[in-house]
Amino acid sequence: MSEKSTLVVSKIKHGTVIDHIPAGKAMNILSVLGISGEKGDRIAIIMNVESEKLGKKDIIKIEGKWLEPRDFDVISLIAPSATVNIVENFEVVKKYKVSLPDRVEGLLKCPNMTCITNERNESIKTKFKVLSRDPLKLQCEYCGTIIYKDDIVKLTNYLKK
Amino acid sequence: MSEKSTLVVSKIKHGTVIDHIPAGKAMNILSVLGISGEKGDRIAIIMNVESEKLGKKDIIKIEGKWLEPRDFDVISLIAPSATVNIVENFEVVKKYKVSLPDRVEGLLKCPNMTCITNERNESIKTKFKVLSRDPLKLQCEYCGTIIYKDDIVKLTNYLKK
Repeated sequence: MSEKSTLVVSKIKHGTVIDHIPAGKAMNILSVLGISGEKGDRIAIIMNVESEKLGKKDIIKIEGKWLEPRDFDVISLIAPSATVNIVENFEVVKKYKVSLPDRVEGLLKCPNMTCITNERNESIKTKFKVLSRDPLKLQCEYCGTIIYKDDIVKLTNYLKK
Repeated sequence: MSEKSTLVVSKIKHGTVIDHIPAGKAMNILSVLGISGEKGDRIAIIMNVESEKLGKKDIIKIEGKWLEPRDFDVISLIAPSATVNIVENFEVVKKYKVSLPDRVEGLLKCPNMTCITNERNESIKTKFKVLSRDPLKLQCEYCGTIIYKDDIVKLTNYLKK
Protein backbone atom coordinates (compact mmCIF):
# COMPACT_ATOMS: atom_id res chain seq x y z
CA MET A 1 0.00 0.00 0.00
CA SER A 2 1.52 3.34 -0.98
CA GLU A 3 1.39 6.19 1.48
CA LYS A 4 -1.05 8.02 -0.77
CA SER A 5 -3.56 5.24 -0.58
CA THR A 6 -3.92 5.31 3.19
CA LEU A 7 -7.20 6.51 4.65
CA VAL A 8 -9.10 5.37 1.58
CA VAL A 9 -12.68 4.41 2.29
CA SER A 10 -14.06 1.49 0.32
CA LYS A 11 -17.15 1.71 -1.85
CA ILE A 12 -20.66 2.04 -0.50
CA LYS A 13 -23.45 -0.19 -1.78
CA HIS A 14 -26.36 2.24 -2.12
CA GLY A 15 -26.23 5.89 -1.27
CA THR A 16 -24.55 9.20 -1.93
CA VAL A 17 -20.94 10.25 -2.29
CA ILE A 18 -20.10 13.94 -2.00
CA ASP A 19 -16.67 14.32 -3.59
CA HIS A 20 -14.27 17.18 -4.38
CA ILE A 21 -15.13 19.06 -1.20
CA PRO A 22 -12.49 21.71 -0.45
CA ALA A 23 -10.05 20.29 2.12
CA GLY A 24 -11.24 20.69 5.69
CA LYS A 25 -14.85 21.54 4.83
CA ALA A 26 -16.49 18.11 5.25
CA MET A 27 -17.67 18.90 8.80
CA ASN A 28 -19.26 22.12 7.60
CA ILE A 29 -21.09 20.23 4.84
CA LEU A 30 -22.46 17.70 7.31
CA SER A 31 -23.46 20.52 9.63
CA VAL A 32 -25.44 22.42 6.99
CA LEU A 33 -27.07 19.19 5.82
CA GLY A 34 -28.11 18.52 9.43
CA ILE A 35 -26.25 15.20 9.50
CA SER A 36 -24.46 14.34 12.74
CA GLY A 37 -24.58 10.57 12.61
CA GLU A 38 -26.71 10.53 15.75
CA LYS A 39 -29.73 9.23 13.82
CA GLY A 40 -27.87 6.08 12.82
CA ASP A 41 -26.83 7.02 9.28
CA ARG A 42 -23.80 5.02 8.16
CA ILE A 43 -21.33 7.67 7.15
CA ALA A 44 -17.69 7.74 6.11
CA ILE A 45 -15.77 10.96 5.99
CA ILE A 46 -12.22 11.35 4.79
CA MET A 47 -10.50 14.67 5.09
CA ASN A 48 -7.40 16.19 3.53
CA VAL A 49 -6.64 13.44 1.05
CA GLU A 50 -4.74 14.05 -2.17
CA SER A 51 -6.76 15.24 -5.15
CA GLU A 52 -5.61 15.85 -8.69
CA LYS A 53 -8.11 18.68 -9.14
CA LEU A 54 -7.89 20.41 -5.77
CA GLY A 55 -4.50 19.46 -4.32
CA LYS A 56 -6.29 18.21 -1.23
CA LYS A 57 -9.94 17.43 -0.73
CA ASP A 58 -12.53 15.89 1.57
CA ILE A 59 -15.01 13.14 0.68
CA ILE A 60 -18.27 12.14 2.40
CA LYS A 61 -20.03 8.82 1.78
CA ILE A 62 -23.49 8.19 3.19
CA GLU A 63 -25.01 4.74 2.93
CA GLY A 64 -28.74 4.65 2.12
CA LYS A 65 -29.12 8.43 1.89
CA TRP A 66 -30.27 10.49 -1.09
CA LEU A 67 -30.12 14.25 -1.19
CA GLU A 68 -32.93 16.68 -1.95
CA PRO A 69 -32.66 19.65 -4.36
CA ARG A 70 -32.35 22.01 -1.36
CA ASP A 71 -29.31 20.02 -0.20
CA PHE A 72 -27.51 20.61 -3.51
CA ASP A 73 -27.90 24.39 -3.15
CA VAL A 74 -26.73 24.36 0.44
CA ILE A 75 -23.67 22.27 -0.51
CA SER A 76 -22.85 24.74 -3.31
CA LEU A 77 -22.57 27.53 -0.73
CA ILE A 78 -19.78 25.73 1.16
CA ALA A 79 -18.24 23.64 -1.60
CA PRO A 80 -18.88 25.04 -5.09
CA SER A 81 -16.41 22.50 -6.48
CA ALA A 82 -18.30 19.50 -5.10
CA THR A 83 -19.67 16.63 -7.13
CA VAL A 84 -22.46 14.39 -5.92
CA ASN A 85 -22.49 10.75 -7.00
CA ILE A 86 -25.47 8.47 -6.59
CA VAL A 87 -24.39 4.89 -5.97
CA GLU A 88 -26.46 1.76 -6.57
CA ASN A 89 -25.03 -1.73 -6.17
CA PHE A 90 -21.53 -0.30 -5.71
CA GLU A 91 -21.71 1.55 -9.05
CA VAL A 92 -22.03 5.28 -9.66
CA VAL A 93 -25.32 5.58 -11.55
CA LYS A 94 -25.63 9.38 -11.56
CA LYS A 95 -23.13 12.15 -11.20
CA TYR A 96 -23.99 15.79 -10.48
CA LYS A 97 -21.88 18.89 -10.22
CA VAL A 98 -23.33 21.29 -7.65
CA SER A 99 -23.84 24.79 -8.90
CA LEU A 100 -24.31 27.97 -6.92
CA PRO A 101 -27.55 29.65 -8.07
CA ASP A 102 -27.69 33.41 -8.79
CA ARG A 103 -30.22 33.79 -5.98
CA VAL A 104 -30.21 31.82 -2.73
CA GLU A 105 -33.76 31.50 -1.44
CA GLY A 106 -34.91 30.20 1.93
CA LEU A 107 -31.56 28.65 2.86
CA LEU A 108 -29.91 31.33 4.97
CA LYS A 109 -31.10 33.46 7.84
CA CYS A 110 -30.42 37.19 7.49
CA PRO A 111 -28.04 38.24 10.31
CA ASN A 112 -29.74 41.65 10.54
CA MET A 113 -32.29 41.10 13.29
CA THR A 114 -34.36 44.09 12.13
CA CYS A 115 -34.68 42.65 8.60
CA ILE A 116 -38.31 41.95 7.70
CA THR A 117 -37.43 38.27 7.15
CA ASN A 118 -36.73 38.04 10.90
CA GLU A 119 -40.14 39.48 11.83
CA ARG A 120 -42.01 36.77 13.73
CA ASN A 121 -45.42 37.73 12.46
CA GLU A 122 -44.35 37.65 8.83
CA SER A 123 -43.41 34.49 7.00
CA ILE A 124 -41.15 35.87 4.34
CA LYS A 125 -38.61 33.55 2.79
CA THR A 126 -35.10 35.01 2.83
CA LYS A 127 -33.57 35.91 -0.54
CA PHE A 128 -29.92 36.64 -1.13
CA LYS A 129 -28.36 37.77 -4.39
CA VAL A 130 -24.94 36.34 -5.20
CA LEU A 131 -22.66 39.38 -5.64
CA SER A 132 -19.43 37.41 -5.92
CA ARG A 133 -18.73 33.71 -6.22
CA ASP A 134 -15.07 33.59 -5.23
CA PRO A 135 -14.77 34.80 -2.55
CA LEU A 136 -18.43 34.22 -1.81
CA LYS A 137 -20.40 37.38 -1.08
CA LEU A 138 -24.19 37.54 -0.85
CA GLN A 139 -26.61 40.41 -0.28
CA CYS A 140 -30.03 40.27 1.37
CA GLU A 141 -32.60 41.47 -1.16
CA TYR A 142 -34.75 42.97 1.59
CA CYS A 143 -32.37 44.93 3.82
CA GLY A 144 -29.12 44.99 1.84
CA THR A 145 -27.04 43.22 4.50
CA ILE A 146 -23.92 41.61 3.04
CA ILE A 147 -22.82 38.16 4.16
CA TYR A 148 -19.57 36.35 3.46
CA LYS A 149 -18.30 32.79 3.12
CA ASP A 150 -17.43 32.44 6.82
CA ASP A 151 -20.98 33.36 7.90
CA ILE A 152 -22.64 30.58 5.88
CA VAL A 153 -22.52 27.66 8.33
CA LYS A 154 -23.90 29.72 11.21
CA LEU A 155 -26.66 31.31 9.12
CA THR A 156 -27.71 28.01 7.55
CA ASN A 157 -27.95 26.14 10.85
CA TYR A 158 -29.75 28.98 12.52
CA LEU A 159 -32.56 28.78 9.97
CA LYS A 160 -33.17 25.10 10.63
CA LYS A 161 -33.93 25.64 14.32
CA MET B 1 -17.93 -7.54 -0.71
CA SER B 2 -20.62 -8.23 1.86
CA GLU B 3 -22.93 -5.41 2.89
CA LYS B 4 -21.35 -5.43 6.35
CA SER B 5 -17.93 -4.68 4.95
CA THR B 6 -18.94 -1.48 3.19
CA LEU B 7 -17.69 1.83 4.58
CA VAL B 8 -14.55 0.19 5.90
CA VAL B 9 -11.59 2.52 6.05
CA SER B 10 -8.21 1.05 5.24
CA LYS B 11 -5.27 1.20 7.62
CA ILE B 12 -3.33 4.32 8.42
CA LYS B 13 0.47 4.31 8.30
CA HIS B 14 1.36 6.34 11.41
CA GLY B 15 -1.09 7.87 13.80
CA THR B 16 -4.00 7.22 16.13
CA VAL B 17 -7.14 5.17 15.86
CA ILE B 18 -9.97 5.85 18.31
CA ASP B 19 -12.17 2.77 18.21
CA HIS B 20 -15.30 1.53 20.02
CA ILE B 21 -16.84 4.99 20.16
CA PRO B 22 -20.58 4.76 20.92
CA ALA B 23 -22.50 5.02 17.61
CA GLY B 24 -23.11 8.59 16.52
CA LYS B 25 -20.60 10.17 18.92
CA ALA B 26 -17.58 10.56 16.60
CA MET B 27 -18.40 14.20 15.83
CA ASN B 28 -18.63 14.99 19.53
CA ILE B 29 -15.22 13.38 20.11
CA LEU B 30 -13.65 15.45 17.34
CA SER B 31 -15.33 18.55 18.70
CA VAL B 32 -14.00 18.09 22.27
CA LEU B 33 -10.53 17.28 20.90
CA GLY B 34 -10.66 20.51 18.90
CA ILE B 35 -10.17 18.68 15.59
CA SER B 36 -12.16 19.95 12.63
CA GLY B 37 -9.87 18.96 9.78
CA GLU B 38 -9.39 22.62 8.90
CA LYS B 39 -5.72 22.51 9.93
CA GLY B 40 -4.96 19.86 7.31
CA ASP B 41 -5.03 16.73 9.49
CA ARG B 42 -5.74 13.63 7.42
CA ILE B 43 -8.73 12.12 9.15
CA ALA B 44 -11.10 9.25 8.45
CA ILE B 45 -14.33 8.89 10.36
CA ILE B 46 -16.77 6.04 10.02
CA MET B 47 -20.03 6.15 11.85
CA ASN B 48 -22.65 3.55 12.75
CA VAL B 49 -20.77 0.48 11.60
CA GLU B 50 -21.39 -2.96 13.05
CA SER B 51 -19.50 -3.83 16.22
CA GLU B 52 -19.45 -7.12 18.11
CA LYS B 53 -19.06 -5.34 21.45
CA LEU B 54 -21.38 -2.37 21.01
CA GLY B 55 -23.88 -3.39 18.30
CA LYS B 56 -22.93 -0.27 16.37
CA LYS B 57 -19.94 1.99 16.80
CA ASP B 58 -17.95 4.86 15.34
CA ILE B 59 -14.23 4.88 14.51
CA ILE B 60 -11.86 7.81 14.01
CA LYS B 61 -8.46 7.48 12.34
CA ILE B 62 -6.03 10.37 12.34
CA GLU B 63 -2.85 10.16 10.31
CA GLY B 64 0.26 11.61 11.99
CA LYS B 65 -1.52 12.60 15.20
CA TRP B 66 -0.77 11.45 18.74
CA LEU B 67 -2.99 12.25 21.69
CA GLU B 68 -2.00 13.88 24.97
CA PRO B 69 -3.03 12.59 28.43
CA ARG B 70 -5.66 15.35 28.63
CA ASP B 71 -7.22 14.03 25.41
CA PHE B 72 -7.72 10.58 26.93
CA ASP B 73 -9.69 12.04 29.84
CA VAL B 74 -11.83 14.18 27.58
CA ILE B 75 -12.57 11.18 25.34
CA SER B 76 -13.59 9.15 28.41
CA LEU B 77 -16.30 11.72 29.19
CA ILE B 78 -18.01 11.16 25.82
CA ALA B 79 -17.00 7.59 25.04
CA PRO B 80 -16.09 5.60 28.17
CA SER B 81 -15.99 2.45 26.00
CA ALA B 82 -13.36 3.84 23.62
CA THR B 83 -9.99 2.29 22.88
CA VAL B 84 -7.08 4.25 21.49
CA ASN B 85 -4.61 2.49 19.22
CA ILE B 86 -1.25 3.92 18.27
CA VAL B 87 -0.23 2.87 14.77
CA GLU B 88 3.28 2.79 13.36
CA ASN B 89 4.07 1.40 9.92
CA PHE B 90 0.50 0.12 9.55
CA GLU B 91 0.76 -1.93 12.77
CA VAL B 92 -0.91 -1.27 16.12
CA VAL B 93 2.05 -0.80 18.48
CA LYS B 94 0.12 0.33 21.58
CA LYS B 95 -3.45 -0.06 22.69
CA TYR B 96 -5.12 1.89 25.47
CA LYS B 97 -8.55 1.72 27.03
CA VAL B 98 -9.74 5.15 28.10
CA SER B 99 -10.88 5.35 31.68
CA LEU B 100 -13.06 7.97 33.32
CA PRO B 101 -11.19 9.33 36.37
CA ASP B 102 -12.97 9.80 39.74
CA ARG B 103 -12.29 13.53 39.50
CA VAL B 104 -12.33 15.56 36.30
CA GLU B 105 -9.98 18.51 36.66
CA GLY B 106 -9.55 21.46 34.32
CA LEU B 107 -11.50 19.90 31.45
CA LEU B 108 -15.00 21.32 31.87
CA LYS B 109 -16.34 24.77 32.52
CA CYS B 110 -18.83 25.05 35.38
CA PRO B 111 -22.20 26.18 33.92
CA ASN B 112 -22.94 28.21 37.08
CA MET B 113 -21.71 31.66 36.16
CA THR B 114 -21.46 32.67 39.82
CA CYS B 115 -19.16 29.72 40.62
CA ILE B 116 -15.75 30.90 41.79
CA THR B 117 -14.12 29.04 38.88
CA ASN B 118 -15.83 31.52 36.54
CA GLU B 119 -14.44 34.53 38.39
CA ARG B 120 -12.18 36.40 35.98
CA ASN B 121 -9.74 37.59 38.61
CA GLU B 122 -9.22 34.11 40.02
CA SER B 123 -7.48 31.35 38.13
CA ILE B 124 -9.00 28.33 39.76
CA LYS B 125 -9.01 25.07 37.83
CA THR B 126 -12.46 23.49 37.70
CA LYS B 127 -12.91 20.20 39.60
CA PHE B 128 -15.84 17.88 39.16
CA LYS B 129 -16.49 14.72 41.15
CA VAL B 130 -17.94 11.78 39.22
CA LEU B 131 -21.20 10.92 41.03
CA SER B 132 -22.39 8.38 38.48
CA ARG B 133 -20.70 6.80 35.47
CA ASP B 134 -23.70 5.48 33.59
CA PRO B 135 -25.57 7.71 33.07
CA LEU B 136 -22.78 10.23 33.52
CA LYS B 137 -23.37 12.71 36.34
CA LEU B 138 -20.72 15.08 37.69
CA GLN B 139 -20.74 17.62 40.50
CA CYS B 140 -18.70 20.82 40.76
CA GLU B 141 -16.58 20.59 43.92
CA TYR B 142 -16.79 24.34 44.45
CA CYS B 143 -20.47 25.23 44.02
CA GLY B 144 -22.22 21.86 43.92
CA THR B 145 -23.70 22.32 40.43
CA ILE B 146 -24.61 19.00 38.81
CA ILE B 147 -23.87 18.37 35.13
CA TYR B 148 -25.00 15.54 32.92
CA LYS B 149 -23.81 13.66 29.84
CA ASP B 150 -25.57 15.96 27.38
CA ASP B 151 -23.83 19.05 28.80
CA ILE B 152 -20.32 17.70 28.26
CA VAL B 153 -19.60 18.83 24.67
CA LYS B 154 -20.77 22.37 25.31
CA LEU B 155 -18.88 22.72 28.59
CA THR B 156 -15.68 21.25 27.16
CA ASN B 157 -15.64 23.48 24.10
CA TYR B 158 -16.49 26.53 26.13
CA LEU B 159 -13.38 26.08 28.26
CA LYS B 160 -11.07 26.01 25.24
CA LYS B 161 -12.10 29.46 24.08
